[in-house]
Amino acid sequence: MKRTLCIAAALLVGAAAWAQQALGPGTGIVSPEINADNTVTFRYFAPKAITVQLTGDFLPVRRVDMQEGRDGLWTYTTEPLKGELYSYSFVVDGVRTMDPSNIYQNRDIATWTNIFTLSAEKGDAGWYYEVHDTPHGNVSHVWYDSPTLGCTRRMSVYTPAGYEDSPKAKYPVLYLLHGSGGDEDAWLELGRTAQILDNLIAEGKAEPMIVVIPNGVYYNRAAPGAAVNMFQPTMANSRSDSTIEIENSFPDIIKYVESHYRVKKGAAYRAVAGLSMGGRQSSALARHYPTTFGYIGQFSGVVIPQGEDDPALKALFAAKPKLFWIGVGKDDGVKKNSLILKNYCDAKGYPCEYYESDGGHIWRNWRVYLTIFAQRLFK
Amino acid sequence: MKRTLCIAAALLVGAAAWAQQALGPGTGIVSPEINADNTVTFRYFAPKAITVQLTGDFLPVRRVDMQEGRDGLWTYTTEPLKGELYSYSFVVDGVRTMDPSNIYQNRDIATWTNIFTLSAEKGDAGWYYEVHDTPHGNVSHVWYDSPTLGCTRRMSVYTPAGYEDSPKAKYPVLYLLHGSGGDEDAWLELGRTAQILDNLIAEGKAEPMIVVIPNGVYYNRAAPGAAVNMFQPTMANSRSDSTIEIENSFPDIIKYVESHYRVKKGAAYRAVAGLSMGGRQSSALARHYPTTFGYIGQFSGVVIPQGEDDPALKALFAAKPKLFWIGVGKDDGVKKNSLILKNYCDAKGYPCEYYESDGGHIWRNWRVYLTIFAQRLFK
Repeated sequence: MKRTLCIAAALLVGAAAWAQQALGPGTGIVSPEINADNTVTFRYFAPKAITVQLTGDFLPVRRVDMQEGRDGLWTYTTEPLKGELYSYSFVVDGVRTMDPSNIYQNRDIATWTNIFTLSAEKGDAGWYYEVHDTPHGNVSHVWYDSPTLGCTRRMSVYTPAGYEDSPKAKYPVLYLLHGSGGDEDAWLELGRTAQILDNLIAEGKAEPMIVVIPNGVYYNRAAPGAAVNMFQPTMANSRSDSTIEIENSFPDIIKYVESHYRVKKGAAYRAVAGLSMGGRQSSALARHYPTTFGYIGQFSGVVIPQGEDDPALKALFAAKPKLFWIGVGKDDGVKKNSLILKNYCDAKGYPCEYYESDGGHIWRNWRVYLTIFAQRLFK
Repeated sequence: MKRTLCIAAALLVGAAAWAQQALGPGTGIVSPEINADNTVTFRYFAPKAITVQLTGDFLPVRRVDMQEGRDGLWTYTTEPLKGELYSYSFVVDGVRTMDPSNIYQNRDIATWTNIFTLSAEKGDAGWYYEVHDTPHGNVSHVWYDSPTLGCTRRMSVYTPAGYEDSPKAKYPVLYLLHGSGGDEDAWLELGRTAQILDNLIAEGKAEPMIVVIPNGVYYNRAAPGAAVNMFQPTMANSRSDSTIEIENSFPDIIKYVESHYRVKKGAAYRAVAGLSMGGRQSSALARHYPTTFGYIGQFSGVVIPQGEDDPALKALFAAKPKLFWIGVGKDDGVKKNSLILKNYCDAKGYPCEYYESDGGHIWRNWRVYLTIFAQRLFK
C-alpha cells in the first residue's frame, strides 16, 4: 500500500501542472477492486476528511462509513455481490464526490455516478452488460431531418455485427425510447444496449436487429454536448405533452431509417419500446399507429385505457400485434397504471404480457426488461 | 442565492435515495456561469471544507483560493477570458474534485476534468469548438477487421453533413491519430473534431471530408468501455514500438475505409495527421508509404531524419506531397526534434511548413493545429 500512496501523493501535488502537460495520469489507486470472492473494495485518498462514506445501489443501507487508514486512505469492502452493473459515489464530509480512481461513470440526466460491472457467472445480468470477445455491432450518431418538428435531430443507431459485410441482408428494427430528462445517449450508456444486443445475438438468443434510439424530448435536437449551447438537462425538459409531439413526428424517424438502412418493412419487423416517459411514448405510438409495430414494450410507463371501450386499444389489438409487453417493478409508482392496463386487456381478451420485477423506477430494471424483451422479437 | 442553496441542501440529503429512484437531478447550483463580460464564476457547495481551490488552464497561477460564503457556497470569478475550450477542477482540502454542477467533462487517459467553452466572438478558437446551428456530420463507432493484428478493432468515423443524402458523391479522407494513452474517442472528445469540421465546412473554409480516427495503441482493440474488461488506461499503454505495428497494420484501415465509404482514392485525397505519439505515427506512415498520403500533419511529434541522406524522406518528397506540415508549441519538449526535421527539410530543399504556437504539449494546441491543418486539405 505504501507504494500506492506514494504515487497518489505525488499526483496530488502534480495533478494541475497545466502549463506543460494536460495528460491525465490517474490516481495510482485501485478503486473499485473486484476481489476473487465477488466482494468489492473501494478506496479514496483524503487525509484531511473527517468522514468518508460510500453510497451505492448494492448496499443494504443508504450509506456506509469507510474506514481511514493512518495514511489518509479510506477503504470499504462489500459483502459478495451478484453479477450486475452497479453505481456508487463517495460522500466526503457530507458532499457527494466522484471516485477519481475509476474512469467508468454514467450520466443520468444531470448527475454523474461511478459504475462498475461484475460478472459473477456467465449469463447473469452483469455478464450481459460487459463486453465479451464476440462480434460487435457498430453505433452511429446520425442527424436526420424532421419536417414535422422543423429541424434536424440526432439519434443513435446500433447496427448488428455483420451488417456492413452483408450488403444484401435486411434487418428488423427496434425503436427504443428513453425517459424524462434523458436523450439519445441514455440507452447506450445507462442502458448498455450495444453490449446487451451484442451478447444476446452472439449467444443466438436474439435475432440480429437494428436498434434506433431517437431523442424523445421533442424540443431538444440532441443530447448535451452534441446540441447548441452547453445546457444542463433537467427533468423539466420533459413535459406531459411531449408524447403527442413524438407521436406526430415519429413517421419522420421511420422514414429516415427505412430509406438509409437495409431494413425489413412492415409491422412484423418493427418493434417499439421505452422506459418511463419512453414507455408512455411507446404505448402512445402503438395506439396512434395500430398497424405499424408488431411488438410493443412498455417499461415502467404506460398509457392507461381511455374509457370503458377504448377505441385505440381495440384497433391496436384488431391488428394482432405479436407481443404487447409490460414490465414494471413491484415498488414502482407506475405499477398501479401498469396493472390497470393489464387488467383491462385481460378483461377484453387482448393478449398482454405482464412482467413484474423487484425494485422500483430504476435503470437496473430497464436493462433487465430490454434483455428479456429483445429475446422475444422477430421470431 | 437563497433559493439555489435551499435546493442544493435538499439534494445533498436526497441524492442517494437509490431504492426508488436513480434519476439524476443535478445540484441546483449554476457552475460555471459565463457572465456577459466573459468573466466566469465557479461555485461549489461544501459547508465543512477548510479550503476550496480552483485549478484550471485559464488561470495565471496554478491554483486560486475560492471564497466561502456563510452558507457553505464557495465562489470564484475569473478575469475576462478569451474564446476557448477550458478545463478545470476544484481542490477541496487538498483533494482534486469534479464540479458536480457541470455535466460537461473530458477524460484524458485516466483523468476526468470539467470543461466549458466560451465563444468571445465569432471565429475565435472557442467558437470553432462549439456546436452552432449548421448542418452536422454523423459520427460512427465502427469495428473493422485487421488481419495484420489478428483481431477486429474499433475506430471512429466522421462523415460530413450531406454524405448520407448524396449517394453518388465521393469524399477525401483525413486519418487522424491520437497520442499515447489515448484512443479512438480522444480526438472527438478532447479534440472537438466533429465541431471543428462542422464549423469549418459550414463556413466554406474546409472541404467536406471524412475523418477516420483509429485506435493507435496496437494491442488495444478499443477505448475503455467498448473493450473487453474495464481497464484503466495508462501512458504505459503506448510503447515506442507501437509506431511500427501501426505502420504495418495501417493498410487494413485504409482498405476498410475505401471499401465501406464513398471515398476518392489516391494520395491527393488522403491526409494523415496525429498528435504526440500520433504525430510520430503520422510521420512514420508518410515515410513508410511515401505515395499514399498527399497531406501529412505532425502535431507535437515527428520522426527525425535517419542519417545525413535519409532515403525515406527522399522517397517521400520525390512523390511531391502537397503539404508536409509540422505544428509544435514553443514550450514543448518535442520542439527540438521538430526543428531538426524542419531544418533538414530546408537544407534538402524539401517543402516543409513549420507552425510554432505558444504553450506546450497540450490539447489546446492540438485543436488549433487541426483547425489550421484541415483548412489546407484537398484544395
